[in-house]
Amino acid sequence: MRNILIIGCGLLGSSLVRRISKKKIAKKIFIYEKSKSNIAKIKSLRLPGTIVKSLKDGLVNSNLVIVCTSTSEYKKLIIKINKTISPNTLITDVGSSKIESSKIIKKFLKPGINWIRSHPIAGSEVSGPEFGKADMFEDKWCVLIKDKKTSSKNLKFLISFWKKMGSKTVIMNSEKHDKVFSITSHLPHLIAYNLVKSAQDFEKILKFGLIKYSAGGLRDFSRIAASNEIMWRDIFFDNKVNVTKAIDLFIKNLKSFKKDINSKNNRSILKKLSQTKKVRSKIIKLKQDVNKPDFGRD
Amino acid sequence: MRNILIIGCGLLGSSLVRRISKKKIAKKIFIYEKSKSNIAKIKSLRLPGTIVKSLKDGLVNSNLVIVCTSTSEYKKLIIKINKTISPNTLITDVGSSKIESSKIIKKFLKPGINWIRSHPIAGSEVSGPEFGKADMFEDKWCVLIKDKKTSSKNLKFLISFWKKMGSKTVIMNSEKHDKVFSITSHLPHLIAYNLVKSAQDFEKILKFGLIKYSAGGLRDFSRIAASNEIMWRDIFFDNKVNVTKAIDLFIKNLKSFKKDINSKNNRSILKKLSQTKKVRSKIIKLKQDVNKPDFGRD
Repeated sequence: MRNILIIGCGLLGSSLVRRISKKKIAKKIFIYEKSKSNIAKIKSLRLPGTIVKSLKDGLVNSNLVIVCTSTSEYKKLIIKINKTISPNTLITDVGSSKIESSKIIKKFLKPGINWIRSHPIAGSEVSGPEFGKADMFEDKWCVLIKDKKTSSKNLKFLISFWKKMGSKTVIMNSEKHDKVFSITSHLPHLIAYNLVKSAQDFEKILKFGLIKYSAGGLRDFSRIAASNEIMWRDIFFDNKVNVTKAIDLFIKNLKSFKKDINSKNNRSILKKLSQTKKVRSKIIKLKQDVNKPDFGRD
Repeated sequence: MRNILIIGCGLLGSSLVRRISKKKIAKKIFIYEKSKSNIAKIKSLRLPGTIVKSLKDGLVNSNLVIVCTSTSEYKKLIIKINKTISPNTLITDVGSSKIESSKIIKKFLKPGINWIRSHPIAGSEVSGPEFGKADMFEDKWCVLIKDKKTSSKNLKFLISFWKKMGSKTVIMNSEKHDKVFSITSHLPHLIAYNLVKSAQDFEKILKFGLIKYSAGGLRDFSRIAASNEIMWRDIFFDNKVNVTKAIDLFIKNLKSFKKDINSKNNRSILKKLSQTKKVRSKIIKLKQDVNKPDFGRD
């Protein structure tokens, strides 16, 4: 049984606190949070953890540290962590991009300290501790990053930790991770943001409030485009090489589709439209989504 | 009180049948359906309408005809309708694009026959009469198309009909309609299809099954990309001029976003990401979507 320190207690951090407490897998839970508004929420929610005023207080008493901040906070945070951290304490995180942030960790983290990267594929368009929940990670994938220096013992421990969070675990290296999620997560978010922006641009061009007619498709994208902007800026910046490749392939596909429409290429369009349909069945079968029409909105 | 003929009894047609019956707003409901599989489903569902074997049987007995087929069926259908239709019978439809299909109607429909176009902003990624429901149009917008020749009396009647279906109504001309929905519906669908296709392309390039990690964004698009392919081919072909303009603006935005990422233009990216967020609140406020994180999937 260990003590666990959660650094950054927003949507994911607070979900960890709830789950760790519910499953009784830590002696003590410490919470280090910079935002005054989040601290007030944590207190009023009576989250089952001890808020520590200084990072040091949390670090000296914990065996596991889980960093749940944006990756752009890592450098500053590591410099602070270095002052207190012991080689017996394992660090992990929940960041959505790995190559660039691993460089920061490698460059700034004190030698001899263990930090194994994690990425639970969980979250939502809402932010803040009030939206966290104990089953946030239930049946969700959690990717663990293994590189040459990763200690098998620590990795094994982390796998078991995420399983207690409810996750299914999978091991990848940073390169594979950042490629896979540039397609399944980063590109979809980027597209959602740009689609909503294009709708806003068209509102200006047409001088007509078209957002109110968004039930035919746009509204689904607007949900994704409402996600935390700091986190997503960091992801796009960190993973810009893979994201750029993804954008380029996507634009190529869009242009080919446009050509098909304009030449009324019936065979090509029908082939494309029916092939993409199969992916939906696959996603349902893989239990990555619910099989309710329209997400069962009604 | 009138008799109503539904031509094409899939998702929307069967929803109309259910609602018309539930609200008792027709003396008789006739159903004309070409697909043998749909006819079998309609029978086993015991939908409250009389299936007519010939279009003529339905037409001679009805005062209102609602065409719920794909727009690519219109020409053939109109040629058949012309043989029997009376000037006392009003025709409407539920098609999602208006300019091109209105040209077909104008060119082929017998002079003196009234056809006022409707577009209920309702539907789902699933097709077929088994998925229809009486509240499909509840609180949804229904656009009615008014042009120079539209009879005010008939338009008034149709507005009242759609209100009985549960819809809020709005009047536009075909040009405005096709522009608005090229952005709020046609572009989102086209993008969803192309995003899913890009993910499939990347699976081949990476030789790695990445679809299973789609919970981080891709899965939402896959729902939209599972929509009926015949209907969507028709929409893209019919509205290709507006859709092409929408694609071009969208690609322009994507390229600018890519540039921002690659130059790490913090200010520009944050501005874009936070501005699109506002649209989500607007959509929720306009009751175009539910305000549950992650669509309340869990």
